[in-house]
Amino acid sequence: MTQCLARRSLYMMGMRCIRCGRIFPIGDYFEGCPNCLSGGWPASVAPAYDDAMFTSEHWKNWLAYSGEPVLGEGETPLVRLPSLEQRIGIACLSAKCEGANPTGSHKDRMSAFVVHRAKEVGLTTVAAASSGNAGVSLAAYAASAGLDCVIVTTPDMSANWRRAAEMHGAQIIATATSDERWRLVAEKTRSGAWYPVTNYLTPPVGSNPFGVDGYRAIAYELFAQSGANQPTDVVVPTARGDIIWGIAQGYADLRKAGLLTVLPKVHAVEPFPRITCVIAGVDMRETFAGTSALVSIGGGTVTFQAMEALKMTGGAAVAVAETQVREDQMELARAGLYLELSSVAALSGLKRLLHAGVVSRAANAVIVATSHGYKEEAHYERPLDTVSLRLM
Amino acid sequence: MTQCLARRSLYMMGMRCIRCGRIFPIGDYFEGCPNCLSGGWPASVAPAYDDAMFTSEHWKNWLAYSGEPVLGEGETPLVRLPSLEQRIGIACLSAKCEGANPTGSHKDRMSAFVVHRAKEVGLTTVAAASSGNAGVSLAAYAASAGLDCVIVTTPDMSANWRRAAEMHGAQIIATATSDERWRLVAEKTRSGAWYPVTNYLTPPVGSNPFGVDGYRAIAYELFAQSGANQPTDVVVPTARGDIIWGIAQGYADLRKAGLLTVLPKVHAVEPFPRITCVIAGVDMRETFAGTSALVSIGGGTVTFQAMEALKMTGGAAVAVAETQVREDQMELARAGLYLELSSVAALSGLKRLLHAGVVSRAANAVIVATSHGYKEEAHYERPLDTVSLRLM
Repeated sequence: MTQCLARRSLYMMGMRCIRCGRIFPIGDYFEGCPNCLSGGWPASVAPAYDDAMFTSEHWKNWLAYSGEPVLGEGETPLVRLPSLEQRIGIACLSAKCEGANPTGSHKDRMSAFVVHRAKEVGLTTVAAASSGNAGVSLAAYAASAGLDCVIVTTPDMSANWRRAAEMHGAQIIATATSDERWRLVAEKTRSGAWYPVTNYLTPPVGSNPFGVDGYRAIAYELFAQSGANQPTDVVVPTARGDIIWGIAQGYADLRKAGLLTVLPKVHAVEPFPRITCVIAGVDMRETFAGTSALVSIGGGTVTFQAMEALKMTGGAAVAVAETQVREDQMELARAGLYLELSSVAALSGLKRLLHAGVVSRAANAVIVATSHGYKEEAHYERPLDTVSLRLM
Repeated sequence: MTQCLARRSLYMMGMRCIRCGRIFPIGDYFEGCPNCLSGGWPASVAPAYDDAMFTSEHWKNWLAYSGEPVLGEGETPLVRLPSLEQRIGIACLSAKCEGANPTGSHKDRMSAFVVHRAKEVGLTTVAAASSGNAGVSLAAYAASAGLDCVIVTTPDMSANWRRAAEMHGAQIIATATSDERWRLVAEKTRSGAWYPVTNYLTPPVGSNPFGVDGYRAIAYELFAQSGANQPTDVVVPTARGDIIWGIAQGYADLRKAGLLTVLPKVHAVEPFPRITCVIAGVDMRETFAGTSALVSIGGGTVTFQAMEALKMTGGAAVAVAETQVREDQMELARAGLYLELSSVAALSGLKRLLHAGVVSRAANAVIVATSHGYKEEAHYERPLDTVSLRLM
């Protein structure tokens, strides 16, 4: 039975800048590493753990907070997709189904830890700049913990997500533009009124480091679920790179613990060129032009952590076309998985990586299915036509 | 890693009528026990197992089909709800979160087994009369197994469910009335064209017996998840009683195996009086008047299996008002769980049972949260109003 008792890891020794490596005392570095920020290179910090931790028996003790899940998050299924293997031409393909999380996306892993940390530091209002999964997830975990939640969004927030957030009792504030969302979160964070999950810098760093820490469990679970058939490639829908960084770091932890020697390549898929531009030489602090219906991985910025995840594992980045993703949404549903468009991008990206020879046809690939499809709005002009039984 | 290899249990000895106890050869009895049907008392059959099965080590071997999950169904979280315990006045309250299943409801446990059985008997089209969870779930499992799927519905099928079913490639047929749905499924089943999950008799028996068998796992999981703190009461949203019967039967199995001595009471919650009328003396073969927004537990009929589940465990039945359920939907969301209205009925029913003294204030109750809330359509007249940052 799940319960709400969380204890911060006794192995946490401080916060490490993922760029310069400097160690800071345990704390909330909402703007990332102060050192790198003042040098003009924003970068996240991450909890730094005593190496002794990685000798302990079970990876559940390797996370920022121990204790049972709050609302049942984590331990999501890894589902083999044999019919797609044949269609796309790959030896082994599975999906890590994060839609099985309590609010239907991977964000629940982050929200659980953000709420634990907010309670630890005594703040009673958590906040997200989000029009989708992150906001609704935070609203659910705040409700469960008895905290207030503010979701800062734009006026066009999708009805399915808006209803869920309202049900959870979150306060929804709409600003005219995305930029204003971040300005508001920045102000309220700096004044000490809100405990934020979202980073508000431009260019940004990753989300709340205690929250991002929860994504390491995806690598641990993949490792445990895969037995002798470990993935060679993990394909991740990516915007600011919280989840891809968590997965890469989790695999690095497993190597540190001596549980595996070769990391799978962790690849980033994006809805228009951003990371791919940076790999081609553009300054990662630029803002990249592009819009997309893949709202959960939209936005015009790149983070250091996303680049670092690729570097740590030897992964690639690939941009996918929306038309292709819409086709692949149906292809995945016809293999049994109905996913949000942004999640489907992982399959579209894998296809391109296979075609380019970046991923081998002999690969054992995992697509990270970040969210189920029921949150996307469905519209029909008119009801179904009825048939007459005599004509059947 | 999950795979699609299913083997029928070698302990299955035949099909037992749950009313008269007669044993028939293993087969598909779509109209239930022929003996009871001709006597005017429709009743389901259920797989009958050799008692030796219940000495085996693990309950995963106690089900009609063994093997790994197909799309990740089952092993859903049991989530403690401490804030609600205080509010409603009960010692211990948890939710069994079936929304974590691949298509977001308990129906996935049934669909997996129905598809296994259809493949076993060589039929290539599975069918459901459903406007909601059952149809979409069957569509997903049929897609995964490479079978065709027909969903027979009425023209007003909700857009969120309709889109999912279409994505999974199901053929959707709308008939003018609910009754016509069953007539069509009856015809196509009798001609051998379709393998049905839905029962089409009036008065009905339970759904496909191989599918219903999968619900026994809910009792086994609850047992395993509860350790020394076993539930005293399990509250189940109920229409035709597939899930409540499976849970009751699963607990009876655990008792047969010597793993527990006292069964929890399994209570039925309904949106208007049906089972409650039968308990008060009305013939269970009547059709009961009533409509409800709780579509997943609507319909005007009662089954023998639902009555039997209550009798086996000493459970009660209770009807709940829609206004109360709408309030409780928000109350549950404010404890962290956003559920479909029909699922929320379990909480509303528990409140009534507590108030009536049928469930003790010292109870350890589990509400079966059959489905998440994202499938309910959300409508807003207009976008959110924006705020000016100067006014914050």
